[in-house]
Amino acid sequence: MAASGTSIDPSLRHATAADAALRQVSEPDSLVIRFPASEPLRLDSGRDIAPLTIAYKTYGELNACKSNAILICHALTGDQHVASKHPVTGKGGWWETLVGPGKPVDTNRFYVICANILGGCMGSTGPASLNPATGRPYGVEFPVITVGDMVNAQARLLDHLGIEQLFSVIGGSMGGMQVLQWCARYKDRVFTAMPIATAPWHTAQNIAFHEVGRQAVMADPDWQGGAYYGTEARPSRGLAVARMAAHITYLSEKALQDKFGRGLQNRDAHSFSFDADFKIESYLRHQGSTFVDRFDANSYLYITRAMDYFDLEAEYGKLANAFTGTKTQFCVVSFTSDWLYPTRDNKEIVKALNGVAANVSFVEIESDKGHDAFLLDEAIFFDTVRGFLNAAAKKRGIA
Amino acid sequence: MAASGTSIDPSLRHATAADAALRQVSEPDSLVIRFPASEPLRLDSGRDIAPLTIAYKTYGELNACKSNAILICHALTGDQHVASKHPVTGKGGWWETLVGPGKPVDTNRFYVICANILGGCMGSTGPASLNPATGRPYGVEFPVITVGDMVNAQARLLDHLGIEQLFSVIGGSMGGMQVLQWCARYKDRVFTAMPIATAPWHTAQNIAFHEVGRQAVMADPDWQGGAYYGTEARPSRGLAVARMAAHITYLSEKALQDKFGRGLQNRDAHSFSFDADFKIESYLRHQGSTFVDRFDANSYLYITRAMDYFDLEAEYGKLANAFTGTKTQFCVVSFTSDWLYPTRDNKEIVKALNGVAANVSFVEIESDKGHDAFLLDEAIFFDTVRGFLNAAAKKRGIA
Repeated sequence: MAASGTSIDPSLRHATAADAALRQVSEPDSLVIRFPASEPLRLDSGRDIAPLTIAYKTYGELNACKSNAILICHALTGDQHVASKHPVTGKGGWWETLVGPGKPVDTNRFYVICANILGGCMGSTGPASLNPATGRPYGVEFPVITVGDMVNAQARLLDHLGIEQLFSVIGGSMGGMQVLQWCARYKDRVFTAMPIATAPWHTAQNIAFHEVGRQAVMADPDWQGGAYYGTEARPSRGLAVARMAAHITYLSEKALQDKFGRGLQNRDAHSFSFDADFKIESYLRHQGSTFVDRFDANSYLYITRAMDYFDLEAEYGKLANAFTGTKTQFCVVSFTSDWLYPTRDNKEIVKALNGVAANVSFVEIESDKGHDAFLLDEAIFFDTVRGFLNAAAKKRGIA
Repeated sequence: MAASGTSIDPSLRHATAADAALRQVSEPDSLVIRFPASEPLRLDSGRDIAPLTIAYKTYGELNACKSNAILICHALTGDQHVASKHPVTGKGGWWETLVGPGKPVDTNRFYVICANILGGCMGSTGPASLNPATGRPYGVEFPVITVGDMVNAQARLLDHLGIEQLFSVIGGSMGGMQVLQWCARYKDRVFTAMPIATAPWHTAQNIAFHEVGRQAVMADPDWQGGAYYGTEARPSRGLAVARMAAHITYLSEKALQDKFGRGLQNRDAHSFSFDADFKIESYLRHQGSTFVDRFDANSYLYITRAMDYFDLEAEYGKLANAFTGTKTQFCVVSFTSDWLYPTRDNKEIVKALNGVAANVSFVEIESDKGHDAFLLDEAIFFDTVRGFLNAAAKKRGIA
């Protein structure tokens, strides 16, 4: 089939990429801490998970008094490769616009840690990991986890690193949920916090979009009840549909219209077929098909579930109670065109923090890029992060 | 398996409902006009379709001078059963709040016609109909159609009924697109028009959501390249996912939050599983599973494609050109919380009509029910329709 010497069979490319991704589950291209089976992680569900493995990356140097550590919490489909080449895709780090030498989160000054979340597929324990009880990958035997569980696992990592207090914990989207959970559960361990483009709970619409994604995955016969590891088939079609649906929520309608509008893809007229006539169709299909090369479908199910369960108000009775007695300095950031976690949701966080007289600033950034704005080139956002961290570093006595 | 005398096997119920739905394709419970093969319908793609069948319902009586006919155009998943019991679901007509004796579209006064659209699955020619070239159902051999083709087919029906001019043509959502297309293509045949909760073109976001739905259907192996008719399998899982995704766009975020919020479904706490813990999950799954009982997956593909192709501006060079010389009296209606076809899109119609000095009124109705508001109990909407039609009827001399 190789009619051209420069082209490769796309199915081969997919298989190779997916195999490379699967290798990250057990042999991640990053640091790894493997806690022994005798030290299980007690989950919010009451179940234990053991052994617990956490894969993580660090950037910069920890100073002598261990006061300059920043924990970056990643979003649904992110990972520990925040500011360096991704081992599967070969692309740059997902937040390298923000994190690196001389960047707003300056790794010349700060020691940055980013761990693959519990439930992920890049080396931390997740549904693709080996279940010691069976010797096979967990699949749906993996326990349902929460954002709180993710944070508890990260706290274990910090214990291991000997870091008592973080200078800052920073994250957008689900990363922001982890930030909030950190501030609620480990009040003394967080000097400053930046929850970005996030929410203190998942709304009905948030849950609805996730449920569509999960149903798309589980409707794919190749999902095989979650036991597809080691078989020839992966639920790539279902996962691609899930990714496509989710991707629409990451962009604003205006961004979609400005970028794609009704533009046609490599043609002058409608094809009167089901081809990807429109640029937006071609773009979404591409988003779907590249995602499945690097992400595990079961991880997608578990992480979306954790997000849907996230509700700090329910956990603490009243949202403000989550922050009672906090000494953390907060900077809450939202983006005007984000309709996934709109400014309204972010303001609920600010309101609750004000309710306990916390030290909080709030910045709503004008952007037409939608939820994804937090990952993109937004100068005012960068200035906000840099300014907040530098002022706090001075207060903390970080050189 | 029938442990209880009152329960039936749900798969049996599904099969029975789907069979009942399939019967409507060839033997609809409504009036039918079958044009001979010698009278093909020329499509916008340049292809012909023959024979052409149109299934339709009428309500009320046509007056002697044939001046009181109202054509109702249905939306994506609607059909001709606008104001009477649905033959498959047994539920009431989809717009019986609006249409009937004494209702805003008063069938004591007006003669109401509603035809299943070309490409539909309730008796009008569509992908489930027999392809005379093969003797088998068309499947993906059915030509890709446009909203203009739907309207041309309806014009054939009116010719058959001997109705030269409609007193009004009314429709919401894709029904509104047909209204606009009627007014553009058949200027002399429309006395008044009510395009409701609609748009003069599909935006990138509109196309994106439809593409997700199509990919969900086509990802289902039971779709079998569209040739599932006559086999045991139907692409029900894929179609259900498509319906779930679409359904989110029909409701406002506020409506979802007010109706479901984070409420749990028949339980007091999270199950820590992938069950439908949340009411919104249960609701969406129900929407998906009941939809597949009554709707053909290929029709869903073709109709969404027709909507995506809809762009009156591209067709006429400039939107206002579509209405040049119109004598039709327009009433454009939008709903404040409709984010699928927001007020902004509806105002583009008004602007274009103003650009040709057309007789147009515009009503934006305050509602938190989202796009679906046009199908729901909205008193001010009902008053608007009643008032507009009654005033125009007086002008037209209808008793």
